[in-house]
Amino acid sequence: MKTKNLEDLSTPCLILDKKKLEENCLKAREKCLELNTTLRPHVKTPKSIEVAKIALGKETGPITVSTLREAEYFASAGFNDILYAVSIIPKKLDRLNYIQQKYNCSIKIVIDSVFVAKEILKFGKTFNSNFEILIEIDCGEGRGGLNFQDENIKEISKVFDECEHSKLIGVMSHAGHSYSTNDKNEIMSISNIERDEALASINTFTKINKKPPVVSIGSTPTMFYASHLKGVSEIRAGIYMFWDLAQASRGICEIKDIAVTVLTSVIGHNYQNNKIIVDAGALALSKDISANKFMQEVGYGLVCNPNTGLPLSDLAISEVHQEHGAINISDTSWFDKLPIGSLLRVLPNHACLTCAAYENYNVLENETINDRWNRINGW
Amino acid sequence: MKTKNLEDLSTPCLILDKKKLEENCLKAREKCLELNTTLRPHVKTPKSIEVAKIALGKETGPITVSTLREAEYFASAGFNDILYAVSIIPKKLDRLNYIQQKYNCSIKIVIDSVFVAKEILKFGKTFNSNFEILIEIDCGEGRGGLNFQDENIKEISKVFDECEHSKLIGVMSHAGHSYSTNDKNEIMSISNIERDEALASINTFTKINKKPPVVSIGSTPTMFYASHLKGVSEIRAGIYMFWDLAQASRGICEIKDIAVTVLTSVIGHNYQNNKIIVDAGALALSKDISANKFMQEVGYGLVCNPNTGLPLSDLAISEVHQEHGAINISDTSWFDKLPIGSLLRVLPNHACLTCAAYENYNVLENETINDRWNRINGW
Repeated sequence: MKTKNLEDLSTPCLILDKKKLEENCLKAREKCLELNTTLRPHVKTPKSIEVAKIALGKETGPITVSTLREAEYFASAGFNDILYAVSIIPKKLDRLNYIQQKYNCSIKIVIDSVFVAKEILKFGKTFNSNFEILIEIDCGEGRGGLNFQDENIKEISKVFDECEHSKLIGVMSHAGHSYSTNDKNEIMSISNIERDEALASINTFTKINKKPPVVSIGSTPTMFYASHLKGVSEIRAGIYMFWDLAQASRGICEIKDIAVTVLTSVIGHNYQNNKIIVDAGALALSKDISANKFMQEVGYGLVCNPNTGLPLSDLAISEVHQEHGAINISDTSWFDKLPIGSLLRVLPNHACLTCAAYENYNVLENETINDRWNRINGW
Repeated sequence: MKTKNLEDLSTPCLILDKKKLEENCLKAREKCLELNTTLRPHVKTPKSIEVAKIALGKETGPITVSTLREAEYFASAGFNDILYAVSIIPKKLDRLNYIQQKYNCSIKIVIDSVFVAKEILKFGKTFNSNFEILIEIDCGEGRGGLNFQDENIKEISKVFDECEHSKLIGVMSHAGHSYSTNDKNEIMSISNIERDEALASINTFTKINKKPPVVSIGSTPTMFYASHLKGVSEIRAGIYMFWDLAQASRGICEIKDIAVTVLTSVIGHNYQNNKIIVDAGALALSKDISANKFMQEVGYGLVCNPNTGLPLSDLAISEVHQEHGAINISDTSWFDKLPIGSLLRVLPNHACLTCAAYENYNVLENETINDRWNRINGW
């Protein structure tokens, strides 16, 4: 791609700072090395092959996906060890089987019911398909998964005792509730519980399925605040690659670490209401305001200098309409400092949701846009 | 396309009920006929050529767009009278000019500053381009636009007095604040002000630009609650095509009128927390909760019978994670009534945001999926 400047881009669009991305990814790999466990990056945030490679620090490796479309996209690019971290249902086995066979890859699947376990067994017999299965353990988030002492864990385990085509390989837990606090001690405690309950759940497996068990845990906060991860095979985490205001608001990262921003243009000056209008609205930024629980002042995103990507005073996107964003200003000198046509960058409130509106990343390196990387949205 | 049943679709996906869409569109056309004004459907909600044709009741006609990508998409399909209803900036004139020339169409543009007016003049002279321009009037929303008595209206008007290539053709106003109330009298009052201020603003035009003035107003609520629209050339409205819970919550439509839903599958039963887990989460539904101001109980969407598309008791999506939605249930018999794998449809909280996650609509007609219509997302 021909090198571009920010001025050459149509707004709104995503800017991805490659150096920050690389630094963020390196820190996570180092943390997992220190914890003596494998990092299985969750690509639901970036949905990009190039970003996944940077996260792994190599051409391929274990990854986590959130949709079957992601699974197929990454499989087609040579990723052959994929964990699909959303409960599978019988109807989706067909597509899963197709992807596994077409790309000769393993897509590990997650279940939390005896019913689905039996359906996998039936499907496998009928179509001679091999699946690798993890049982989801709910370690406190209250979303998917079984309590670590639930007797259904043993029941599911039994289903696969004599199965030749599919294997129960372990358990998966996700402490998503670690996002709901900014208290380090609480995150550490959640991290301990995530690890301990995942490990304990294995004890209820029937003998035959006991080894070698995969114990897959993770969320970005519980990775960085883990006291130890003895017995844990792997960590799944994703948001650390980009970071966002939601994470910064909880003290998990610093604002200067955030690698992804939305490039926007000033399109109007509303003098009656002291607002600067930009072309990044609800679709370009999303209406996710997860950060605001602990940082109400960031609105739908913090407004940054386009060149440094760092906050411009305390300017924030205060309101959003479908294609309009408004920056409320108390100091009217901003009208002169930000004339119509000015470029700005906006730090995302929650990067996973913001990025989902875009097809690609404009990759910023040494102050120029050197590349464009695709994302795989949808299902 | 081969006819499909709901069971044949991958979830999550969008279902568009063609009959409801046609009825909704017919009502709006009849309303505009009664008001003796032109309907210029806003395609920012559907972003679909087929839906735009149904909205117009014919193959082509005047439309409103919210992005230049929409403008290009619709222009390429033969729509040659397009209003781009977001303030233009000088940098975007080049792309606009390209689309106009390539498809031999007119894309009317909107401005609210003397600065941009002069830049259009400069651009037009340099590149021999013709633009048709509307001045945006802020009738109370407080987003873009000038107060109807603002002296800048006259100043902008003057800029185009002697211009040969570009023409100031009128004014545009959008009473977006009509969405913020469920009080019919207040909507009627907002509608009156939208009309009166748009009309009054024309009086400050210089003589040469006074006729024939386009007076373009609109929002769905102010269209349906207009007492009269004498002097108004056209109405821009969009959400009436699909409707959603945000509109139903304000009494502008009924729940049975909502034409678009998200098809989702039950993927888990969380017995510990009395939750049914579905595969429509924050990306599939959006995190927009506009409806909740007046209908808090609808959460991120009302859960419906997949066949009728009508609410299943009072079930709602109570919480969303990126790919998981949770339905909190008080009556545990729902676990039996909705086994894992069951299909459900979800009425969107705010359709414009929900639809934006999808590339296409599965078109439901006579209880089968007969077609798939594309959407044009992004910028």
